[in-house]
Amino acid sequence: MYKVTVIGSGNWGSVAAKLIASNTVRLDSFHDEVRMWVFEEKLPNGEKLTDVINKTNENVKYLPGIKLGKNVVADPDLVNAVKDANMLVFVTPHQFVEGICKRLAGKIRADAEGISLIKGMEVKKEGPSMISNLITKQLGINCSVLMGANIANEIAMEKFSEATVGYNQNKSAADRWVQLFCTPYFNVTAVQDVEGVELCGTLKNAVAIAAGFVDGLEMGNNTKAAIMRIGLKEMMTFSKMCFPSVKDSTFFESCGVADLITTCMGGRNRKVADAYARNGGKRSFDELEAEMLQGQKLQGVLTAKEVHEVLSNRGWLHIFPLFSAVHAISTGRLPPSAIVKINEENLRHVQIVSSL
Amino acid sequence: MYKVTVIGSGNWGSVAAKLIASNTVRLDSFHDEVRMWVFEEKLPNGEKLTDVINKTNENVKYLPGIKLGKNVVADPDLVNAVKDANMLVFVTPHQFVEGICKRLAGKIRADAEGISLIKGMEVKKEGPSMISNLITKQLGINCSVLMGANIANEIAMEKFSEATVGYNQNKSAADRWVQLFCTPYFNVTAVQDVEGVELCGTLKNAVAIAAGFVDGLEMGNNTKAAIMRIGLKEMMTFSKMCFPSVKDSTFFESCGVADLITTCMGGRNRKVADAYARNGGKRSFDELEAEMLQGQKLQGVLTAKEVHEVLSNRGWLHIFPLFSAVHAISTGRLPPSAIVKINEENLRHVQIVSSL
Repeated sequence: MYKVTVIGSGNWGSVAAKLIASNTVRLDSFHDEVRMWVFEEKLPNGEKLTDVINKTNENVKYLPGIKLGKNVVADPDLVNAVKDANMLVFVTPHQFVEGICKRLAGKIRADAEGISLIKGMEVKKEGPSMISNLITKQLGINCSVLMGANIANEIAMEKFSEATVGYNQNKSAADRWVQLFCTPYFNVTAVQDVEGVELCGTLKNAVAIAAGFVDGLEMGNNTKAAIMRIGLKEMMTFSKMCFPSVKDSTFFESCGVADLITTCMGGRNRKVADAYARNGGKRSFDELEAEMLQGQKLQGVLTAKEVHEVLSNRGWLHIFPLFSAVHAISTGRLPPSAIVKINEENLRHVQIVSSL
Repeated sequence: MYKVTVIGSGNWGSVAAKLIASNTVRLDSFHDEVRMWVFEEKLPNGEKLTDVINKTNENVKYLPGIKLGKNVVADPDLVNAVKDANMLVFVTPHQFVEGICKRLAGKIRADAEGISLIKGMEVKKEGPSMISNLITKQLGINCSVLMGANIANEIAMEKFSEATVGYNQNKSAADRWVQLFCTPYFNVTAVQDVEGVELCGTLKNAVAIAAGFVDGLEMGNNTKAAIMRIGLKEMMTFSKMCFPSVKDSTFFESCGVADLITTCMGGRNRKVADAYARNGGKRSFDELEAEMLQGQKLQGVLTAKEVHEVLSNRGWLHIFPLFSAVHAISTGRLPPSAIVKINEENLRHVQIVSSL
């Protein structure tokens, strides 16, 4: 019997708990109860968030109006929440993962398996630093990932969507994660490529910045599709150069092309980059972010900067004209219109390298 | 020295002539003059279309406001237009190709190479019937194809875009086509996969019908991206099952993912399918087409029907839940909402088959 704990209870975490809870009651191999660790907060009316979730069966703060399932139990005590679980779902903001793992070390079951739903791994100078890898290292457990075109509120409303589980060796664990998440409106597929799947979730944000520039310049659908395609190829090439085990086919999954499409059509990266281009690059990203995002930072600009560091560090800049242009434009070294003047010679280079 | 004739002078044909003409004057290996066969028409003011093109250097009827290049010569005589050419660019409506080839048989140079820019090959019961293949058979010449995310008017305005040349064996001919079409704003890549490239150009229209249903049902970006992704995979699987030589990588090219994105974002297939879903399937496609398209027929509905015939003929229906649903919905046998209820089991089947 498998017992699940969801570590995190934001918007996406609450939707994940809902998906999972609908399956644990239905399937014999899982305990019905799904424990959800909640970072305790006091609500404006003085009540504790966990109490309200357990009373109303709703995360009134991060997913109001949606019933999570009666078998979801909110727990403010992290160590207590995980003590009986052998399936751990990580879905916190990425900056908290390290601290949480430190608190969990030695406190989890020996047979536990992990899965990370956290997008936004960092790309360090020496290369990408995967969150799944951080969890594995800190807790000594196998860790898969789940990524995809997943706008939490749309899935909460049970609109049809898909996701991809990336795993390393343990196929039977991956199949169990697929069982746990799959519903008639949420179709999940497993691929043996944890790095490829996880990198998609981060790199797409840099491509969305490029797509936003094209929108802001009013270049039309043709140009936008071309830029998205070049972006997808650079995501693939970069991932393969960092991790030779990464598979091309992963980029045809929900985590690849579908998530890229969603992110380049909607989403805040696209939106702020659009505004940046419309202002001719005269108002900085910092300024626009402050105005449009109430203090949140843009993942895409940060990712482009991090990727740029890897590229210059390894001498790969000429192979990635789009990633390079996004960084040069977002730091004001090139005008937004440079996004469609990425060097012809370089494009051919992407083509050749990515077909190797 | 290579000499080029463009056979066809509609909107896309005129843009192709403009691209080509800008390169033949620039490159030493090509004759400057580009001949363009024009189906002669009398303009409202009584002048002949060819005369006006040759006088004003503009195709006033099909691409008004754009200079084609002074080295473009309009010629109303098909046989005369091709007699000196050894590079033939086919860009007519697809229903005219067969008749044109019959008139050209025996009248072209022995060393001629062809390229087809014509989208909309037919899928017959026995399988896809490629236009490049028709040209090869009728004229005994090697024929490549050029496809991609190519909205003619946007390219005419020199907005950045891409295209894919698909070729069979003759790599040096393919390189020459790339040289002939490439400009700083129109980036062309050659892949050795004529069938894959040509099939993309047709099958995407059936996927655009599905995308239109999702829009009409207001299912959101997530669902639309999922449907586009499943469509892309079915395009790939279908192409590979019909032609085992087709390569997965072709679907990452402009002809694949980029053209699919453009077609599912704009375009008339998406638009009419959107209206169909909004009307709950109560007004037929015939009726909506008549109202919205002034007599033009929707390629996507026709393609879905043709693909359906191949699938039922070969016993492949269960492998293509999306293509099957598009046909069932567009013929009124299922409601538009069925597009997001494509069977889970079947989806897994697509996954398995396409990864073989």
